Amino acid sequence: MSRQTSRLDAKKVNSELLTLTYGALVSQMLKEIDNPDDVNKQLERIGYNMGVRLIEDFLARTGSNRCMEMRETADKIQQAFRLYINMQPTVTSWSSSGDEFSLVWDQCPLSEWVEMPNNGLKYCALIPGAIRGALQMVQLDVQCWFIQDQLKGDPVTELRIKYIKRLEDAVPAGED
Amino acid sequence: MSRQTSRLDAKKVNSELLTLTYGALVSQMLKEIDNPDDVNKQLERIGYNMGVRLIEDFLARTGSNRCMEMRETADKIQQAFRLYINMQPTVTSWSSSGDEFSLVWDQCPLSEWVEMPNNGLKYCALIPGAIRGALQMVQLDVQCWFIQDQLKGDPVTELRIKYIKRLEDAVPAGED
Repeated sequence: MSRQTSRLDAKKVNSELLTLTYGALVSQMLKEIDNPDDVNKQLERIGYNMGVRLIEDFLARTGSNRCMEMRETADKIQQAFRLYINMQPTVTSWSSSGDEFSLVWDQCPLSEWVEMPNNGLKYCALIPGAIRGALQMVQLDVQCWFIQDQLKGDPVTELRIKYIKRLEDAVPAGED
Repeated sequence: MSRQTSRLDAKKVNSELLTLTYGALVSQMLKEIDNPDDVNKQLERIGYNMGVRLIEDFLARTGSNRCMEMRETADKIQQAFRLYINMQPTVTSWSSSGDEFSLVWDQCPLSEWVEMPNNGLKYCALIPGAIRGALQMVQLDVQCWFIQDQLKGDPVTELRIKYIKRLEDAVPAGED
């Protein structure tokens, strides 16, 4: 897809439009795909592709440098959520070795108005996908998974992020 | 779907997230549905449902009263685009009887980064759907259709809106 001349970058839109559009995407997938696990995987993949695309914009806007350790990475992820979705998670529950932490939201972003089918769907699977995709573009391989989900009755939504490795030979951000 | 306690109403999110999520929705539909006309219809229907949902919020926020004629309606639609998508169309090309007008955008909202398949898809079909849905909730039956589309090589994107009738016995806004 090519970028058109007139960009909307600095623009902000109403969050309900995003939650409703995302809701339409998830329903559409549930209609067409029988297995909720496959829906989760596809949402994760769509998120991954978004992360790959958004990281360039994030680096350009924030003038961020390469993170030397996971605590810096956590700060940048927190900043990205504030910048893109206007909803900042708490960074918490660090592992003693500093390679793993949680992002916690009082309300899962994207899930306003949502009632979950009781079927294993991970409604917000786009989010870990986006984090994974964005970080891969800066040569950081992480694992992301939900350990609490408000839509499933937990008090908060908690996403766990674990450092796996630095990617040495990855395609640099900005190249396809 | 029920509304959760913590609302995001006043929140603004990055427009790229919306365009990317909408793009994912359209691609998903194109993958699953063979006929582009059916995709157009479904996007229109999804837009309709969004319009039905958003009109309440619009009325509550703007304290708008019932429009007595189409010029007022056009102003409100313009205001809604500014409010929700931060991109205000020009209202133009009124019919002599004042029952029909155009909304014109320099760039179609939602379509950043888009390359169109050459197949009859109306990429932004969500928008006329949303206008139709929102206006039905205030007892106004309109027809909406694109007469120019930048994604198809036209210089601007132009949506035509035509008054059909007042709906006397419609379900009031706020009731399902």
